[in-house]
Amino acid sequence: MILEFAKLFIKNDQIEAFIAVMPKAEAVISKAKGFKSINFKRSVENPTTFVAMIEWETLEDHTVGFRESELFPEWRAVISPYFESAPEVEHFAIA
Amino acid sequence: MILEFAKLFIKNDQIEAFIAVMPKAEAVISKAKGFKSINFKRSVENPTTFVAMIEWETLEDHTVGFRESELFPEWRAVISPYFESAPEVEHFAIA
Repeated sequence: MILEFAKLFIKNDQIEAFIAVMPKAEAVISKAKGFKSINFKRSVENPTTFVAMIEWETLEDHTVGFRESELFPEWRAVISPYFESAPEVEHFAIA
Repeated sequence: MILEFAKLFIKNDQIEAFIAVMPKAEAVISKAKGFKSINFKRSVENPTTFVAMIEWETLEDHTVGFRESELFPEWRAVISPYFESAPEVEHFAIA
């Protein structure tokens, strides 16, 4: 099991719109092979920063399978209009 | 519910020792008021970076209650000898 921790930097005037599309984004990514769960959270210290915490069966399910699938442009089309800047992605495994 | 996401930067030659003290660290912090759970994970991209994902009932349970309690120096005494540099802490709430 791999945890993708993707920090998403959202435009200040687009916060509510971004929150509103979360269920649609989840519906897209949950079709991916190896997808286990997604959890959006919001930073307390930086309220325009959100995180998508996504569990995958393997690293490659995200970095190869999902990113090279037709679902990836669909996912980005749903969420990227609200991005202020590029996401920062890091993966974590059981220690 | 608040998620504390604490990035821990570990000395390269102290990784195994750090992993070995994780249960002791958990035993200390799990005594804190408002503590719900802790999960240590290791970065895939940066193998000397670990994260402690800690769930608290409220933000203040961490930032005030725990940090001002006698448990805090005990917690730091267990884990900080392995730190290469200061942790980076951010809190996340339900979006």
